Amino acid sequence: MEKIRRNERMSVMMKILAGEPGKMSTLNRFCEMFGAAKSTVSEDVDALRKVAREFDLGEIETVTGAAGGVLYRPVRNRESSLKYIQGLCRELSGTERVLPGNYLYYSDILSTPDIVNRMGEILATEFRDANPDFVLTMETKGIPVAFAAANALGTPLVIARHSSKVYEGSAVNINYVSGSGNMETMSLSRRAVRENQRALIVDDFLRGGGTARGMVELMREFNVSVAGMGFVMSTLTPEKKRISGEKSLMTLEVREGEIPEAIVRPSAWLNPA
Amino acid sequence: MEKIRRNERMSVMMKILAGEPGKMSTLNRFCEMFGAAKSTVSEDVDALRKVAREFDLGEIETVTGAAGGVLYRPVRNRESSLKYIQGLCRELSGTERVLPGNYLYYSDILSTPDIVNRMGEILATEFRDANPDFVLTMETKGIPVAFAAANALGTPLVIARHSSKVYEGSAVNINYVSGSGNMETMSLSRRAVRENQRALIVDDFLRGGGTARGMVELMREFNVSVAGMGFVMSTLTPEKKRISGEKSLMTLEVREGEIPEAIVRPSAWLNPA
Repeated sequence: MEKIRRNERMSVMMKILAGEPGKMSTLNRFCEMFGAAKSTVSEDVDALRKVAREFDLGEIETVTGAAGGVLYRPVRNRESSLKYIQGLCRELSGTERVLPGNYLYYSDILSTPDIVNRMGEILATEFRDANPDFVLTMETKGIPVAFAAANALGTPLVIARHSSKVYEGSAVNINYVSGSGNMETMSLSRRAVRENQRALIVDDFLRGGGTARGMVELMREFNVSVAGMGFVMSTLTPEKKRISGEKSLMTLEVREGEIPEAIVRPSAWLNPA
Repeated sequence: MEKIRRNERMSVMMKILAGEPGKMSTLNRFCEMFGAAKSTVSEDVDALRKVAREFDLGEIETVTGAAGGVLYRPVRNRESSLKYIQGLCRELSGTERVLPGNYLYYSDILSTPDIVNRMGEILATEFRDANPDFVLTMETKGIPVAFAAANALGTPLVIARHSSKVYEGSAVNINYVSGSGNMETMSLSRRAVRENQRALIVDDFLRGGGTARGMVELMREFNVSVAGMGFVMSTLTPEKKRISGEKSLMTLEVREGEIPEAIVRPSAWLNPA
């Protein structure tokens, strides 16, 4: 085999590590891949860590010891996250996206991969110290961003449904009061989670918090604790939600009038000041 | 600014390009980022292309001309894809995952990010020459893999719903016959797609093809052509589906008996021979 250069080894490692966020790779994996000594690969990793930090590409972490290795976390710095969300807010604000009933059309934003991945990374950065074992969402619109957050954290995604399906096996059902004030059902397969795990709740939209409250109660049924709650957007009113401690990326206010106007702002916690 | 080394430039470019599959970056973007000459960046790209191919990490494509630049495609070679799917088949086969009614439990597989991303890349590799403008799926279970395929192709994801929602704006509804033989409704926001686009249909499961047939008809209402259809799993029976030309990653057969057993195999088209 031709000798593999440092620039080649580093590029390959960056691709592999960044493609598997939160997943530990042993140095041996790369030693074998490149036919290189551990000291060489170790120097490569040091150089990668430095360059990743310099260009705000995330963190390369090294864990020493027998079960050790190297892993990548798509951590975003607060300034670049705020700038990104400000750009989204400009795109969502105005009169064009307001629907009858003062709803905001943003399904397109919620399913455009590069936007969704970035939002997932920002939420993952915020909640990674809470150490969730999985990300929980309620079908449907929040699934892509919840998946992106799970991907960035290196955890599974768990999806609660409106009703239990034959192909999910036995399930736990709870009733909850939805935003529209109706009683609804939320269902989760018994196989989906285990006792004493930690859930990060991620969803696209928070108004009164009924659905989020339902997810909290669903987790209680499984003896799972809630490590955090992140949303893409929350409405300014009602100010008091049925949950607390949540973080959303943006807040929505719709100014009524002949032509209603949406005002979308980055949430206060994103401000680095 | 300290001079940035080739190994640093290449690692950064690999991370950025691989993080935005199918999205063109100009060489100028990197020239500015590194304070480097175009000829230097161009040599870096050549080296990246070579190493990406050598380690089966995907393709780095260069497009020349005024609108030109460089982009990454997570193309997987057939051998490694087959090997990966064979591993999944081993995990899914057996008696443990068979549910009452001979359904197979694999919701966990459908929402584990690294598995979902890999399946999405394999489908994207297969259908990229069909040039889809977006990926279409029907809620709920197929959303993560459809999102991963859209991500790998660099296209938006479009999600059809069971009913139209107030926050999606005006919608087109069609009726279709589901797998269970019931008439159901499928709904898509008018804003979601444009005339004359090309859709790649991706979903988790294909039995009779009723839902898939519904998606094809829904696209007809929008004057959108279907560029391809990819599924995670299809059942061996009924052999004749209500659609044709589809590709699935795995086929499922459940052998009845006191303890029913699932036999899951890679689909024939994945065989490189």
